[in-house]
Amino acid sequence: MKQLPSKAQALRLACRARTHTGPTPGYAPGYSQANLVVVPQQHAFDFLLFCQRNPRPCPVLEVTDPGDPQPKETAPGADLRTDLPRYRIWRNGEVVEEPTDLLGHWTEDSVAFLLGCSFTFEAALLEAGLPVRHIEQGKNVPMYKTNIACQPAGRFSGPLVVSMRPMTPGQAIEATLICQRFPQSHGAPIHLGDPEAIGIGRIDQPDEGDAVEIRRGEMPVFWACGVTPQAAAKQAKLPWMATHAPGHMFVTDLRE
Amino acid sequence: MKQLPSKAQALRLACRARTHTGPTPGYAPGYSQANLVVVPQQHAFDFLLFCQRNPRPCPVLEVTDPGDPQPKETAPGADLRTDLPRYRIWRNGEVVEEPTDLLGHWTEDSVAFLLGCSFTFEAALLEAGLPVRHIEQGKNVPMYKTNIACQPAGRFSGPLVVSMRPMTPGQAIEATLICQRFPQSHGAPIHLGDPEAIGIGRIDQPDEGDAVEIRRGEMPVFWACGVTPQAAAKQAKLPWMATHAPGHMFVTDLRE
Repeated sequence: MKQLPSKAQALRLACRARTHTGPTPGYAPGYSQANLVVVPQQHAFDFLLFCQRNPRPCPVLEVTDPGDPQPKETAPGADLRTDLPRYRIWRNGEVVEEPTDLLGHWTEDSVAFLLGCSFTFEAALLEAGLPVRHIEQGKNVPMYKTNIACQPAGRFSGPLVVSMRPMTPGQAIEATLICQRFPQSHGAPIHLGDPEAIGIGRIDQPDEGDAVEIRRGEMPVFWACGVTPQAAAKQAKLPWMATHAPGHMFVTDLRE
Repeated sequence: MKQLPSKAQALRLACRARTHTGPTPGYAPGYSQANLVVVPQQHAFDFLLFCQRNPRPCPVLEVTDPGDPQPKETAPGADLRTDLPRYRIWRNGEVVEEPTDLLGHWTEDSVAFLLGCSFTFEAALLEAGLPVRHIEQGKNVPMYKTNIACQPAGRFSGPLVVSMRPMTPGQAIEATLICQRFPQSHGAPIHLGDPEAIGIGRIDQPDEGDAVEIRRGEMPVFWACGVTPQAAAKQAKLPWMATHAPGHMFVTDLRE
């Protein structure tokens, strides 16, 4: 008897068939989604080293063998060239294209990095009854550049980018204990309270995503964000690289 | 007023001056000691990937920038070419020399890996009153090749090598809970009980180190061992690499 595909497999196959080309959140509940960064092999050591030196924003789920588009550990049988709904192609640090596959871009020289994203810890927060304001408000999570420098590696460097979720002090403590259990999904918060202490001037003007309401009695709580390695890769101005398009993630077989 | 050097700094300086050329255990209590592997830059991505794919035997403490002998994170000011008491030079997978420095070997192309070792969790076991038999008996820890294959990366592959410490079942459970807190020092055991289940034929004939007594009521408890990446690097037959000599570790500034 043939086994039915899991929701993760089904979504990947729908991406491959181009019947699913939209964002991925909500489509395969319970499965870890991942950020994708593809770099030429000659930059792969520096990028892996950047991730190793900055594990909070860059939790490595898997790195593929050069030229091999299959993530054997996290989704055997999947193809990273086709199984995401939408990609971004970068040249010299600028987005030049947003294709639905990498078939014309992937070479024997390509190395893919799958990095943990915040959806996993957000699911755990929601399950614990803690607020995730941007989900409540139907917005994108607010993201901010900080004055905390990442540890550089080769040509990769840049500031730590954080995401923010407002919480009461008690909720922040509970969220810290929960997120600590998910080091592959950015782990515990890196800061709470005064935004200026980490170089954020205007909490109502995020650098990316949308501003969300901070209610009376709440403080902003900040987590290391998966946009950090993308920002470092962008800043490195590689002649070529590819990433997922924002919100259009790779869905792994890993259970949250 | 000039600050006195710490015990870790003092030991490193004694190595540099060649007044300390023996093993390091016991000389800087409270400081994490590390395995050293130095490979040419062209193999550094594959070796880092091997460590990333096999974190239990290969917990990465730090990777240096190519050509830079200073481990900026774990021991600022130290020099990995001189601050270990003894090294091994490998050519095509064979030890050809055991010098007291790497000054004549280190090049602009050298990348150093510092990997966590078992001394840290052994100190925690001893502190908790748990037995560490080879220390009791004044022997080297017994090590065994298993039938568990590491995840390969490029030319690096090989079996998981484990170290063994006999304990009662209750002690094994306590040791598991303690070691879980030290992922940078191999973490929780990977097996306990029947040695044959992981391909070990003769528990009284370790592949490296010395056999130790297993008393009535005790079972062997197995941890992933830092010899694993050395074995993989040896098997890769790199034209050149360097490691620490067994027991002659790098002492970091990290507190255990």
